[in-house]
Parts: sequence; structure tokens; C-alpha cells
Amino acid sequence: MKFSLRPQEGAFYEMFSRAAQNLVRGTELLSELALPGADVQSVSERLADVEHDSDQITHELYNKINSTFITPFDREDIYRLGSGLDDVMDHLEAVGNLVYLYGLTKLPALPREMIEMIDVLDQQAKVTALAMPRLKQMKGLKDYWVECNRLENDGDRTYRMLLVRLFSGEYDALTVLKMKEVADELEAACDAFEHVANTVETIAVKES
Amino acid sequence: MKFSLRPQEGAFYEMFSRAAQNLVRGTELLSELALPGADVQSVSERLADVEHDSDQITHELYNKINSTFITPFDREDIYRLGSGLDDVMDHLEAVGNLVYLYGLTKLPALPREMIEMIDVLDQQAKVTALAMPRLKQMKGLKDYWVECNRLENDGDRTYRMLLVRLFSGEYDALTVLKMKEVADELEAACDAFEHVANTVETIAVKES
Amino acid sequence: MKFSLRPQEGAFYEMFSRAAQNLVRGTELLSELALPGADVQSVSERLADVEHDSDQITHELYNKINSTFITPFDREDIYRLGSGLDDVMDHLEAVGNLVYLYGLTKLPALPREMIEMIDVLDQQAKVTALAMPRLKQMKGLKDYWVECNRLENDGDRTYRMLLVRLFSGEYDALTVLKMKEVADELEAACDAFEHVANTVETIAVKES
Repeated sequence: MKFSLRPQEGAFYEMFSRAAQNLVRGTELLSELALPGADVQSVSERLADVEHDSDQITHELYNKINSTFITPFDREDIYRLGSGLDDVMDHLEAVGNLVYLYGLTKLPALPREMIEMIDVLDQQAKVTALAMPRLKQMKGLKDYWVECNRLENDGDRTYRMLLVRLFSGEYDALTVLKMKEVADELEAACDAFEHVANTVETIAVKES
Repeated sequence: MKFSLRPQEGAFYEMFSRAAQNLVRGTELLSELALPGADVQSVSERLADVEHDSDQITHELYNKINSTFITPFDREDIYRLGSGLDDVMDHLEAVGNLVYLYGLTKLPALPREMIEMIDVLDQQAKVTALAMPRLKQMKGLKDYWVECNRLENDGDRTYRMLLVRLFSGEYDALTVLKMKEVADELEAACDAFEHVANTVETIAVKES
Repeated sequence: MKFSLRPQEGAFYEMFSRAAQNLVRGTELLSELALPGADVQSVSERLADVEHDSDQITHELYNKINSTFITPFDREDIYRLGSGLDDVMDHLEAVGNLVYLYGLTKLPALPREMIEMIDVLDQQAKVTALAMPRLKQMKGLKDYWVECNRLENDGDRTYRMLLVRLFSGEYDALTVLKMKEVADELEAACDAFEHVANTVETIAVKES
């Protein structure tokens, strides 16, 4: 492996940006599930492709860390940010896969609160994608992590209302269990976005 | 923001102590759920107030880290301890909120093991509140983390016995699912207390 | 406590190896559950013994960190690796205990996917046990963490297929809930092995 002595910071920021843009693609695919007559199998397969692409980016990132002498910030924080973005993608992909595997689209519609959670995730993805290029100047990041945490609170409240609906007696026990799995992945994705925001906050605090 | 050059360690210890005292208030509120005829809505609302106060403390703490030149120990450990205490509060608040949202108090009584878990949490809160002021001298902390871990083991055993009861056929499936959610938050609170204790241990090891 | 000034690296590697060998004992005990007429109580009790032994090793390790002046790598990473290995053991022990407590062996057989997950865990345990002694030379570790992550992906896929089976209507709701708890512990063990591999990767990256 060829070692670079000059800092090549640009490559890192570019990889974070690409990873975050993939998350936007992921949440947009999930948003299709809200549409009547959505093709869930196709959504699930396209999500798997995006997730595969994210894995590639994470892999490149790790190689870059190992072959770069001077990194823009702590190696460990680069790892944490990269794996944090990757975690979000894993949960998004799981949502699509579970909705497909469990055949949940045979229901007339997904519960309204589930669609709301997907919308929260889509907003989190978008603020994250806008924040990544700003890492370079370490400016304007506070607005991002505050907003991302606020969205996570929204998601958490919606998750609780979703559980209230699931446990209300409207669905049979097995359907409840299936939707609970999907709800948990949605909530984990929401948390994983917050975790990314917290990592960015930690990096910004160290650099300030 | 005005930057302080003199170490103002006292302010940090005071914030950790206030956060831990809020946890004691939180577990005492949960203990009310064990009483016959408990007003669950009121418990849930007062827990939300305490949680809101804890958020404020965490916010102050983070600002203090950013505006202080010399911190009593690693910035990252201060973050971790602050966010760890905040995590416990989130789980305590969730317990109250879920018991209320799911209308679980329409049952004759909460399962005995659930009350026992609240009691374990109350003991964890109390040893944590006693330990926080001792961070200043870094003395007498080992007893705290050993005890907090021991309590977590107790909580874990009780949690398993609670699940055995929930799955025994004594309750209908939807009630089981609701109580399972509450049980999981109780267990997560127990774990979060252990996580705080582990953070204190890490800090003490570094300073020794 | 007597402080040692000479590095006693050997003791650390030996403790990591013993901890990992205990994980192999743990997964081998779980493999007994796949056999017809398995004595689940005995498996659960022997697992509890192995877990107790692992706790002792972790305890020794922590004492060693505190009483050693020069450690082979960062104190925090030693902690993380030690507690990571301990976490795996906790989940393995939980699997045995829950299968016993819930009386799941009254079923004709455990679901095939559950046995497959135990097999994945057994392979993860074995590659981990082979990797620990290699920490000393920091050589040949990449193969380990790549393989351990690959196995975790296998486990994840199997876990999803297990849930599809559990929610298919083949079992009654309470049996589903019991098996779901066991499945979650199996999946958490699988993740915990991956976490150990990630910790080893982090250590290797720092040392390279």
C-alpha cells in the first residue's frame, strides 16, 4: 500500500458527503412505501443496492485512514463518523427488507405514524447531507446537530404513538409483532442519525 | 461567549450532583406507581418535568465544557458522564409515559417483579447521587461502582423472572406486549446506571 | 497493591486468550441444545459456570490494568476488549438461561434457523480464540476481523429468516414472544463478537 505524506483531507470530506447522500437516497426509497400500490420488492432491492454502495464507501474510508499519514481529525473520530453513517444505512435497509419479507403491504395501508417516522428520517438525512461538506470549515455545524437532535425527539414521540396504535387491538398479534420489528428499525435509524450528529459535535468541540 | 481561564471545577461537580439528584426524584416518582390508586397521569407529567430539568442541566454542562479552558478531567469523559446521566433520565421518563399511554394501571396491580425493578433503580439512583460529590477527591468511588454493578445484576435477574411471568399465559398477548415495552425501559434504565458507573470507573482509573 | 514497573505484556494476552477460549466453551454448550433430548437445565447451569469464570478473568484483567505501569496498548482499549469479550459471554449465558426458563425444549425441536445462528456463533468464537494470541505480534489480525464481520452478516440474514418463520403463524403468540427473546440474545451475541473484532481492528490501526 502506498503511503501518502501530504494531507489529502478532501478525500475524507468527499467520502462523508457521498455516504450521507446515500442516506438521502435511502430515505427517499422508504418514502415510496407510503404511496398507494408501492412495489415493495423493488424498493427493498434498490435499498439493498444503495446499502451495498455505502459498504463500499465505508471500506474505502477505512483503507484511506490506514494509508494516510496526516488525517483531518482524529483517526478514531473518522472511524466513528464513517461507521455511524453506515449504521444508519443498515437500519434503513432493514426497514425495506422487513416490510417486504413480512408481506406487510398486504395491509390496506401502513399506519400513519410509520409514514411520519419515515418523513422524520428523510429530514434527518437531508440535514446530515448538508452538514457533511461543512466539516471542512468546521462552521455552521451547531445548527445541524441541534436540528438533528430535535428531529430525533420528534421521531421518538411518533414512535411511542405508533406503539400505542399497534397495541390498541386494531391488528392481530402476529401483525403487531411484525410491525413492531419495523417500528424498532425506524426508531433505531432515527437514533443512529442522532449518534452521527453527536459524533460531529464531539469533533467540533475538540477542534474549537 | 466569555472564556474562563481559571479552572472552575466546582461547577462541573455541582452539575453532576444535580443531574444525579434528579434521577433520585425520578425513581421516587416511579415508586409511586406501586401504591394502590396511583395517579399515573400525574406521575408521568411530573417525570416529564424532571426530565426537562435534566435536559437543561445537560445543556448547561455542554456549554460549560465549551467555554472552560481547563476542565477537571478529559472533556470527552465529562461529555460521556453527562450524557450517561441524561440517558438514565430518558428511560425513567419513558417508563412513566408508557405505563400512562398504555393504560396499564387498569390492571389490578403491576407485576411484583416490575415493582422490584423500580426498587433496584431507586437504590442505583441513591448510590449514584452519593458518589457524584466524591468525584472531586476521587475517593470512595470503587464502592459505588461495585455496588451499582451488583444492583444491575439483581435487576437483570428480576427482569428475566418478569419475562417468565409475562409469558406464562397470565395476561393476553397485547397486555404482554405493552408490559414488555415497560420492562425493557426498566432494564435499559438499570443498564444506563451501570454505564454511568463504568464511566466513573474509567475516569478514576485514568486519574489514579 | 504492588505496582509492577516492568511491562508484563504476556499476562494480558493470556487473559484475552482465556476469555476467548471460554467463549468457545460457551458456544459448544449451546450447540448441545440442537441435539435430540438435550438436558437444557444442565446446559444452562454449565453455561452459568463458564460465565462466572469469565467474570473472574475480566476482574483479574481490570486489576492488572490498575496495577501495571506500562500496558501493551492503551488502557482504554484493553478495557474495551476485555469488556467486549465479557459481553459476548453474557449473551451466550442468557440464551441458555432463557431456553431453560421458558421451557422451550418442550417443543419438538428448536427452529432450524436458531441452530444455524448457534453455528455462526461457534465459528465466531473459534476465529476469535485463534486471533487473541496473535495480538502479541499484531500480525494476521485482518483476516480475523474480516471473517468475524462476514459471519455477523450471515447471522443477521439468518436472524431475519428466523423472524419470518416465527411470525408465520406456525407458533402461538406466547411461544413466538419467548423464541423472539432467545433470537434477540443470539443476534446480540453475534453483534458482540463483531464489536470485539472492531475493537481489535481499532487497536491494530493505532499500532500500525
